[in-house]
Amino acid sequence: MEQISANRAHGGMQGVYTHASAVTGTDMTFSVFVPDHAPGARLPVLWYLSGLTCTHANVTEKGEYREACARHGVNFVAPDTSPRGDGVPDDEAYDFGKGAGFYVDANQAPWSTHFRMRSYIEDELPALVAAQFPVDMARQSITGHSMGGHGALTISLRNPGRFRSTSAFAPIVSPLNCPWGEKALTGYIGADRADWRQYDACALIEDGARLPDLLVDQGEADGFLEEQLKTGLLTAACAAAGIPATIRLQPGYDHSYFFISTFMAEHVGWHAERLTR
Amino acid sequence: MEQISANRAHGGMQGVYTHASAVTGTDMTFSVFVPDHAPGARLPVLWYLSGLTCTHANVTEKGEYREACARHGVNFVAPDTSPRGDGVPDDEAYDFGKGAGFYVDANQAPWSTHFRMRSYIEDELPALVAAQFPVDMARQSITGHSMGGHGALTISLRNPGRFRSTSAFAPIVSPLNCPWGEKALTGYIGADRADWRQYDACALIEDGARLPDLLVDQGEADGFLEEQLKTGLLTAACAAAGIPATIRLQPGYDHSYFFISTFMAEHVGWHAERLTR
Repeated sequence: MEQISANRAHGGMQGVYTHASAVTGTDMTFSVFVPDHAPGARLPVLWYLSGLTCTHANVTEKGEYREACARHGVNFVAPDTSPRGDGVPDDEAYDFGKGAGFYVDANQAPWSTHFRMRSYIEDELPALVAAQFPVDMARQSITGHSMGGHGALTISLRNPGRFRSTSAFAPIVSPLNCPWGEKALTGYIGADRADWRQYDACALIEDGARLPDLLVDQGEADGFLEEQLKTGLLTAACAAAGIPATIRLQPGYDHSYFFISTFMAEHVGWHAERLTR
Repeated sequence: MEQISANRAHGGMQGVYTHASAVTGTDMTFSVFVPDHAPGARLPVLWYLSGLTCTHANVTEKGEYREACARHGVNFVAPDTSPRGDGVPDDEAYDFGKGAGFYVDANQAPWSTHFRMRSYIEDELPALVAAQFPVDMARQSITGHSMGGHGALTISLRNPGRFRSTSAFAPIVSPLNCPWGEKALTGYIGADRADWRQYDACALIEDGARLPDLLVDQGEADGFLEEQLKTGLLTAACAAAGIPATIRLQPGYDHSYFFISTFMAEHVGWHAERLTR
């Protein structure tokens, strides 16, 4: 692991790192914010998964999480959204290929060689973070935006007990039921829609997966709400499954980091409550 | 004036605007954050002048000012740092020409045609902002970063009574005494250093200009501190003139927006106290 940059911010250190990933077969870049802490102390960690087209940099620059993370004593880890590099296949659209890994392990050529973001986020990166940073891996929470909200929900649903709490900003709640999801899962996983259910938050809940609670914020002025995000499907799935979910529609807010940054401190505080109980 | 974008954020509206400037002879872009307010109400305004290479976008994306501005009810205006466009002369270096207007009215060819950022910031833009936004022009404050800190200090010193309060992040305190300043003022104003004193905060103070008080934050790990920023000259000038100045060296902080965003809310709050007295 190599440090790309380190900047003091809000009483902590914001770092950016790169490492050779065995899972993706590429170099992978991610950022970690570590609040000041007593020598030897290990702090809880909040994972943030980013949306389509993003790298670690978008939330690191525009997410406005550092003040709240420093105040609550929570590490903040932001991975990239796909493998990258000259040898990695790509698609000319913004919603498939580089920047659009959808947190799945692809099994379709040519994507299956590098596009293994599920294993990268679930296994390889946590092991690296646990080894290299002052993180208490018994106290993890997860959140994300849009495609990353889909990632946060599905990873948490598939790994019961790993995360103390789960939240999302404007998540894709059901790839089975939106154009972004249909394109990505067909491309990465193949045409058998039964195989997609492990990558669909609503389907996972229908199939029995549970969360202790859930916080979701969704902008009402988000141009992707109706066709792609379909928050109502998640509300219905949680209600049917008895999952206590706070799913809020925020009037006037769109899909941008202006929206995310507005509610970020509240999400960090909500997770911190559950991480420090 | 044309609106480029409008995003709801932190209980207010973040807008970006462009207009044809008579002063610079170019289109000029700037951003304004307007907190929610009662119909007809006019809120105080904090001006933020940006540093070398920046546009309105850097602080708008990375400045983390919106939460504090919304909480205190303060408008936030962020202008560009120079004229731009195909017809505007430039220099290949980052510290002269486009992105480096230094908040002066140039009188040297070829710069004098467009590089009139002093008049733009002091006269033209305030008139436009007063006409187009819910701003109480009797309650203005000013701040800025680096070259923009120089701008905030010198504009405030030259316009006594206009600003309720003045602060800066890592300002260039004396262009007469640093390479950035010597290059810019020679280029824009000519070789007569007596003409530079109107654009040098320390010289303006030596020549009798005064501020009611002053807040400055400066990172100790800022790579520009020793050669370019020279905060100590401002501390000495304020002490000699009896200006009550809080000038803080912040251990570990550098020159980036990681530094600025850390102390932004505190600056907004400090200004708000003086704007709402």
